[in-house]
Amino acid sequence: MSITHPQGFTAAGVTAGLKRSGKKDLALVVNEGPLHVGVGVFTSNRVFAAPVAWSRQVVADGRVDAVVLNSGGANASTGAEGFADTHRTAEHVAVALQAAGKDVSAGDVAVCSTGLIGVRLPMDLLLPGVDAAVAALAADGGDDAAHAILTTDTVTKQSMVEGSGWSVAGMAKGAGMLAPGLATMLCVITTDAVVTHEAASRMLAEAVRSTFNRVDSDGCMSTNDTVLLLASGASGVSPDESALESALTQVCAELARGLVADAEGASHDIAVTVVNATTEHAAEEVARAVTRSNLFKAAIFGNDPNWGRVLAAVGTVPEQVAPFDANLLDVAINGVQVCRAAGVGDDRDLVDLTGREVHVTVDLHAGDASVTLWTNDLTHDYVHENSAYSS
Amino acid sequence: MSITHPQGFTAAGVTAGLKRSGKKDLALVVNEGPLHVGVGVFTSNRVFAAPVAWSRQVVADGRVDAVVLNSGGANASTGAEGFADTHRTAEHVAVALQAAGKDVSAGDVAVCSTGLIGVRLPMDLLLPGVDAAVAALAADGGDDAAHAILTTDTVTKQSMVEGSGWSVAGMAKGAGMLAPGLATMLCVITTDAVVTHEAASRMLAEAVRSTFNRVDSDGCMSTNDTVLLLASGASGVSPDESALESALTQVCAELARGLVADAEGASHDIAVTVVNATTEHAAEEVARAVTRSNLFKAAIFGNDPNWGRVLAAVGTVPEQVAPFDANLLDVAINGVQVCRAAGVGDDRDLVDLTGREVHVTVDLHAGDASVTLWTNDLTHDYVHENSAYSS
Repeated sequence: MSITHPQGFTAAGVTAGLKRSGKKDLALVVNEGPLHVGVGVFTSNRVFAAPVAWSRQVVADGRVDAVVLNSGGANASTGAEGFADTHRTAEHVAVALQAAGKDVSAGDVAVCSTGLIGVRLPMDLLLPGVDAAVAALAADGGDDAAHAILTTDTVTKQSMVEGSGWSVAGMAKGAGMLAPGLATMLCVITTDAVVTHEAASRMLAEAVRSTFNRVDSDGCMSTNDTVLLLASGASGVSPDESALESALTQVCAELARGLVADAEGASHDIAVTVVNATTEHAAEEVARAVTRSNLFKAAIFGNDPNWGRVLAAVGTVPEQVAPFDANLLDVAINGVQVCRAAGVGDDRDLVDLTGREVHVTVDLHAGDASVTLWTNDLTHDYVHENSAYSS
Repeated sequence: MSITHPQGFTAAGVTAGLKRSGKKDLALVVNEGPLHVGVGVFTSNRVFAAPVAWSRQVVADGRVDAVVLNSGGANASTGAEGFADTHRTAEHVAVALQAAGKDVSAGDVAVCSTGLIGVRLPMDLLLPGVDAAVAALAADGGDDAAHAILTTDTVTKQSMVEGSGWSVAGMAKGAGMLAPGLATMLCVITTDAVVTHEAASRMLAEAVRSTFNRVDSDGCMSTNDTVLLLASGASGVSPDESALESALTQVCAELARGLVADAEGASHDIAVTVVNATTEHAAEEVARAVTRSNLFKAAIFGNDPNWGRVLAAVGTVPEQVAPFDANLLDVAINGVQVCRAAGVGDDRDLVDLTGREVHVTVDLHAGDASVTLWTNDLTHDYVHENSAYSS
């Protein structure tokens, strides 16, 4: 179920030598057409990496011919030289693809990078890697590509939805620094459906809003987040817009769930659902307050249904953002109503937190909007992985 | 240098049995006059504990005769019964003090509690503890009181500033759940200066704003935070307002610094200074973005001068909150300019992070306002303490 399942795409994943481990670290995805629709959503961080600056330009006209992605270096905070490296990478991809008989211009080659910030990419390794990737391009290369974009991820994240004669597939990487306004993640989604870039752009924005943007592993927003959607039109089928958007959203939702499941050092995946809020925005802000509480997340790591920490987090949301009566708040953890009307509810010892998934529901009793956000617990391993990453 | 150093105060700290450890857990501070000025600043959390609701009423008229504080239970999210417990505690203190010949009414007795949320206080232990505290009241009881309010704190926090014939002293507890809009902390400050409650209220608000509200250990805001200032007027001296405010601010600053130094499981105290912001508010918001970054705080735990994580955090602050050009950002860590103009600066290996104190400076190059916030690193021990706290 890789990104080369939809027709009209080839891909490759190779070892360029950017990772000391010797694992695959460079991926290439080529849209073989006949359509070359390409749209993207990028980090909202004001400090963004060179490849984000570049790829924003690439998708501006709605056309993308190819995407090159590297792990082993984010190419962020690398100044004008870093941007020149990205530009040079795109040029190199275009030239190599042209040599392989494909009509590709550098301005239609998106670039994505992930890894440490503040370090230049070793171009002497990366460019030969591009050549190797072009040589390895295959109609079943999607799985290799999904491996090549991993950093601290322990598994690939891939998903697919099959329509009537068309399909949507996606791959993503990300295992920490997951936060609203996109997780630290790179994601490429392919479809062989026929779609305009205007429709694709609108659908992608909507799908990201309700999926990736509702994942918040550690509250940290990356400089490199990128989600690209490429449409080849190779199926010749123009699906109903709602069917395509639904498939796209499902692919994104599965990838987002996969990111949470593989978050650095996590031992629990926590769904925080806020119900009966005045607006969806209010529900989301309340849920974010909970998903960002280190105290709450450490408690879940300790299998401790500490609903007081949920209430304390909920109470930090300003009245004008989320109107509710703090005396009416209910909290349920894994189905046990541990807090009722802001006071002690059912016996907390009834809560079973031994499983990987934890469901926390906060009832605001203020309206009828609801939202679910996913996060992880705060563990010894999270601290370990993130204190040792760059040293 | 305890809170009974200023004239006109007696205090006590006793073991009521609220803590399983058998350590002191109930403190009483009595303002013996002749003035009975009392003002307070409380948590801005919408979910606040019963003693906060009570004490807000007590200070409304600017008079406080006594403060009773307990550790071993926060009396938060305990409903109407919890509020009745607080009321009953204040009544009991008043009656006991009246029996000891002091003219005190329950409406002038502030109550503070700290400990686990969602659990009723054992009143059968607490009320006899009040009697024991009244019996133990002494003109040198401040140090005992400072011990009785501790929870996971490893040391007492006390400070004092001596004026000309008058003084200001304070005690505080808090060792985690430290966040803007107050740390999880209880703090009582005493002075024998002559001051009106209007002036005292204004000075306290200002002092808290620039001290306790600039401490952010883990981004979590408590339900019980309380800072009380009591003035006895016993020195007979009416100091210059600026001198008194300065002394008060210094006492608060030292206590706030003490909270950071004793934060749960921390191995580094981190000062994040943002300079050349357009406004103080902009500087503060940028500093908060850094002090809340788990990735940055875990890196410091690992003695890793990971300035990329500083930049990534700075970049999350919206343009309308803090205008700056992201291409101009400089970052220095312990004096080494590791990031210059948003790119690689001096050699990061020159940064020595082996000491307890870490100084991070972010230069926005946008104006001339600056702010320093204190936080801690994110450590294995933080996770450990906070995953095991209530179980």
